[in-house]
Amino acid sequence: MALRGVLRLGEVCIRVLDMKAARRHYGDRMGLIEVMTDAEGKHYYKAWDEHDHHCIVLREADSAGIDSFAFKVYDDQTLTDLEEKLNAYGIPVERIAAGVYPKSGRRLQFVLPSGHTMHLYAEKEQIGNTLGTSNPGVMPDEGVVRGFRINRIDHVLLGGVNIDENAKLFQEVFEFDMTERLVDADSKQSLALFVSCSTKPHDVAFVLQPEPNRFHHVSFLLDSINDLFHAADLIGKYRIPVDVNTNRHGITRGATIYFFDPSGNRNEVFTGGYVHYPDTPVLTWDTSDLGAASFSQDNTPRESFFNVLT
Amino acid sequence: MALRGVLRLGEVCIRVLDMKAARRHYGDRMGLIEVMTDAEGKHYYKAWDEHDHHCIVLREADSAGIDSFAFKVYDDQTLTDLEEKLNAYGIPVERIAAGVYPKSGRRLQFVLPSGHTMHLYAEKEQIGNTLGTSNPGVMPDEGVVRGFRINRIDHVLLGGVNIDENAKLFQEVFEFDMTERLVDADSKQSLALFVSCSTKPHDVAFVLQPEPNRFHHVSFLLDSINDLFHAADLIGKYRIPVDVNTNRHGITRGATIYFFDPSGNRNEVFTGGYVHYPDTPVLTWDTSDLGAASFSQDNTPRESFFNVLT
Amino acid sequence: MALRGVLRLGEVCIRVLDMKAARRHYGDRMGLIEVMTDAEGKHYYKAWDEHDHHCIVLREADSAGIDSFAFKVYDDQTLTDLEEKLNAYGIPVERIAAGVYPKSGRRLQFVLPSGHTMHLYAEKEQIGNTLGTSNPGVMPDEGVVRGFRINRIDHVLLGGVNIDENAKLFQEVFEFDMTERLVDADSKQSLALFVSCSTKPHDVAFVLQPEPNRFHHVSFLLDSINDLFHAADLIGKYRIPVDVNTNRHGITRGATIYFFDPSGNRNEVFTGGYVHYPDTPVLTWDTSDLGAASFSQDNTPRESFFNVLT
Amino acid sequence: MALRGVLRLGEVCIRVLDMKAARRHYGDRMGLIEVMTDAEGKHYYKAWDEHDHHCIVLREADSAGIDSFAFKVYDDQTLTDLEEKLNAYGIPVERIAAGVYPKSGRRLQFVLPSGHTMHLYAEKEQIGNTLGTSNPGVMPDEGVVRGFRINRIDHVLLGGVNIDENAKLFQEVFEFDMTERLVDADSKQSLALFVSCSTKPHDVAFVLQPEPNRFHHVSFLLDSINDLFHAADLIGKYRIPVDVNTNRHGITRGATIYFFDPSGNRNEVFTGGYVHYPDTPVLTWDTSDLGAASFSQDNTPRESFFNVLT
Repeated sequence: MALRGVLRLGEVCIRVLDMKAARRHYGDRMGLIEVMTDAEGKHYYKAWDEHDHHCIVLREADSAGIDSFAFKVYDDQTLTDLEEKLNAYGIPVERIAAGVYPKSGRRLQFVLPSGHTMHLYAEKEQIGNTLGTSNPGVMPDEGVVRGFRINRIDHVLLGGVNIDENAKLFQEVFEFDMTERLVDADSKQSLALFVSCSTKPHDVAFVLQPEPNRFHHVSFLLDSINDLFHAADLIGKYRIPVDVNTNRHGITRGATIYFFDPSGNRNEVFTGGYVHYPDTPVLTWDTSDLGAASFSQDNTPRESFFNVLT
Repeated sequence: MALRGVLRLGEVCIRVLDMKAARRHYGDRMGLIEVMTDAEGKHYYKAWDEHDHHCIVLREADSAGIDSFAFKVYDDQTLTDLEEKLNAYGIPVERIAAGVYPKSGRRLQFVLPSGHTMHLYAEKEQIGNTLGTSNPGVMPDEGVVRGFRINRIDHVLLGGVNIDENAKLFQEVFEFDMTERLVDADSKQSLALFVSCSTKPHDVAFVLQPEPNRFHHVSFLLDSINDLFHAADLIGKYRIPVDVNTNRHGITRGATIYFFDPSGNRNEVFTGGYVHYPDTPVLTWDTSDLGAASFSQDNTPRESFFNVLT
Repeated sequence: MALRGVLRLGEVCIRVLDMKAARRHYGDRMGLIEVMTDAEGKHYYKAWDEHDHHCIVLREADSAGIDSFAFKVYDDQTLTDLEEKLNAYGIPVERIAAGVYPKSGRRLQFVLPSGHTMHLYAEKEQIGNTLGTSNPGVMPDEGVVRGFRINRIDHVLLGGVNIDENAKLFQEVFEFDMTERLVDADSKQSLALFVSCSTKPHDVAFVLQPEPNRFHHVSFLLDSINDLFHAADLIGKYRIPVDVNTNRHGITRGATIYFFDPSGNRNEVFTGGYVHYPDTPVLTWDTSDLGAASFSQDNTPRESFFNVLT
Repeated sequence: MALRGVLRLGEVCIRVLDMKAARRHYGDRMGLIEVMTDAEGKHYYKAWDEHDHHCIVLREADSAGIDSFAFKVYDDQTLTDLEEKLNAYGIPVERIAAGVYPKSGRRLQFVLPSGHTMHLYAEKEQIGNTLGTSNPGVMPDEGVVRGFRINRIDHVLLGGVNIDENAKLFQEVFEFDMTERLVDADSKQSLALFVSCSTKPHDVAFVLQPEPNRFHHVSFLLDSINDLFHAADLIGKYRIPVDVNTNRHGITRGATIYFFDPSGNRNEVFTGGYVHYPDTPVLTWDTSDLGAASFSQDNTPRESFFNVLT
């Protein structure tokens, strides 16, 4: 059976302190495509190879961080089923009518045990990837793929309390697989948990934080190590603040760069990683090898990983 | 929901004319890992980053081609459900006991409308990818990844009659998505159909042939364009017969090399391609642009694509 | 001692049948930077990482081919010395005053034994690579590197008679090294000769032809195999006629694509190849292995290599 | 004229504290090919695509650092000429007979203003790159290119006093070009100087240090960014101490990893960088942009660059 149920991360709404600087960062520099501004002044972006209307929404606010994130589900019946399952699981669900969120069908809204606001929706207007669907070819016109050459939004990492409960919810209600876990070597407490609803090593992950509803990063997919290095060169050119330059995560095996938007929100560009299936063994890392788990090319944990969130 | 139901291509049984030459090709040169020889003289191979015991079985015979291919399903209940669905669909199913196929749980066996023998199974012994599951690291020991640096088996392309019926079966019974179609520009007849049960642009595909049960190719996944070029260099070094050297398919957007094993069975190494979701629009190509559909870097169709099968 | 004497291929003047189509090809599509049009309607191009004003001159004419090519030498004294050496060698030299060729200092002009017109010059206006020379950074502004992402002009391959005499002249007068030779397996006649004045496997090469003054191709340097594949994708997108898609030359070990401009002049994009030094052994290939010598990934010689020139 | 005079860095003799650990590092892990052990217990290594017998000599000693480095020159006459020029320049030269250094012809030995011992030689036994010289092919047998997939030795960076005098000597006597300079933004004092005798952005460089005869690093050439990332993955796997993980130098534009051998000697793997010619403008960086000059992807200078040497 192909993917059904919850399909993928479809939208992240990020608070930024200065919209002009944010648009330069996400649009001009990273190369995400600005598709819309709404009446409230929010700006909407997509990556070139996505078909849906947008994946990133920027909202100007007094504090940085994440307003909400949303997963797209297979169809409206899936929404109905999941509302029932969430209610049965004890998670209060708010219904949001179609159109309240632009270009989007009706949504379910609820708060995770970690304090984050999550949405589910089944419909969003599709505007395509410029190639069309009949003898489409493989290369968009020059200028469509630019900046960091981002293909798609990939995942978010959320910081908060109760991350075991988050993972349990995603596994039991949304039927995600746990793919990897980082635990304290002594107490075995979960420090970070990675779950997948696809063949990716993670579609969303949770990192333990003393406070709820913190934002660790949103990650974007690149095609290759060469494109990762190209993005790193551009990050350097634009003097974008770098958290961790090109490296490889132990967890997920993905090649990565962490950097910050002008409001201090962490972004990632990501490529590679293994292919996950439900029968892939769960990988467990512990703090006795925290360096390799986080950044396997120099086996050096970064304090900012657990301390710097918005 | 993560992948459930039919998960992935798990096994292809290939007939070879000369086992010694075949072992040199698949093992020594391509770098697949030989894991077992059975009492009948069949040789079993896996790719390094697969966890299951094997994905390729070679059987010496008087004619080249494919004996059968098998998909792994989520669990035993899925097998039970699919047997019922196949029966209801009108496909006779043979039950094969656990252990008849080495390292494998029970299987369902049946014949596709195209004439191919297909298996489903839920269990196969897992031997892992050498990294372990506790603080596993990301790099196997040197020598584990060698030859063409193949990560995994990827898909098969089967030639036969009744390919629309094949696709219907995969969509209706196995719940695959149709991803792309190649049709005759005039008659609109289906010439090749691509279906996916994952985020890959195809997990199996069917190409129209006048005769049933023909084998077009088995494809193996590489990490990068660099590894594709490395494989091409080795193919050249070993004077392996090349069907089509490095190019990019229009259909699937994957980068490819087609070459032949010593028995004339076509192999492919493959990397890239887009990310498919159930809501990705189906792409349709027709013979008015057959060159771009098949090999988009030189827009040149190869006759062998429709004429050379085993 | 650093490079002195004859430094590098600095200019190729190509005849095109239709300037508008040629400009679309070399400028819009390949991404060479058009820097000037002269009073005679010739168009001048440079690659982004070259410092000199231009490397390609297009002239509209009734036949395709090459008007002349030019090497830059170290300084004016080198010109004086080489004029003397050419005269002593028996090659008549014509002096061309500074400014006759735009942006260029004085030139020596002469005809090679193969029938080609060659220039030498020591001065050409430098306009830089946009990075400057003081804390320059490493990345030009977006849009500077576009199209095929060409870094530099690399070499030309000239077809003609008397190629042994060409090679002798380049070795004895210009002090190039012979790097590789392709000879007939039986007669040992030279079929193609490759000479270098740098650490590149060739700066110019000669292929035996029954007629003098034929143009085989001009080649442009790319950064990586990834950029080669990107160029191949664009070549496919624009339906540029492909002679040989992505492959690797045995001779020079360079990765290559051969394609044609709208006038039928062959172009190449090229990356890789070994590092040559004067003490690197000369490599000899013969026609018993012509496939590997020319295209080592499929060991298949192409007739067009010896038959299609302008 | 092809390269003549001083050709390239041909040999670096490194002191190591523990030969067993050093052999595991340079041979087993990095994948340099051990070609010889001499009567004094020194171990000799080459990179696969070099033709000469060796480029690295390891000597066990009580302190880490560099014993000497050597450049190969074009021929014996060049040695004679350079001895005369060195004497005229005021540098005392010691003659070392052929055979004193294994596999090597006669040498000139002298001490640079920075305190380093340098050799020049014209002859070293050639053992080739395994491909042969007649229809050689392009791919060595599997196992020849392994570990970090190092192609060649590339350059050394030497720390010491009087670096301006070093650069002057290399320019005036050895006819190298200055390619780049790092200077103090206020005093304009030279902090690091880069000189080339080829088309590489440097063949040797000098960094200002309060003490003479310090060793900053020896650098090895890789083919691609992909191979750089592969080396980084292996460095991580083997827990080799990393100084600076994958990044790009502003100076030279080369992609880099700095890491340490078990004795604390710094090594680098390097790929890319621009093509230098004598008419390429000299690039000047100053300490007002030290981050970009050293590591352009995160614009972050590392203290260890000026403080950690052997």
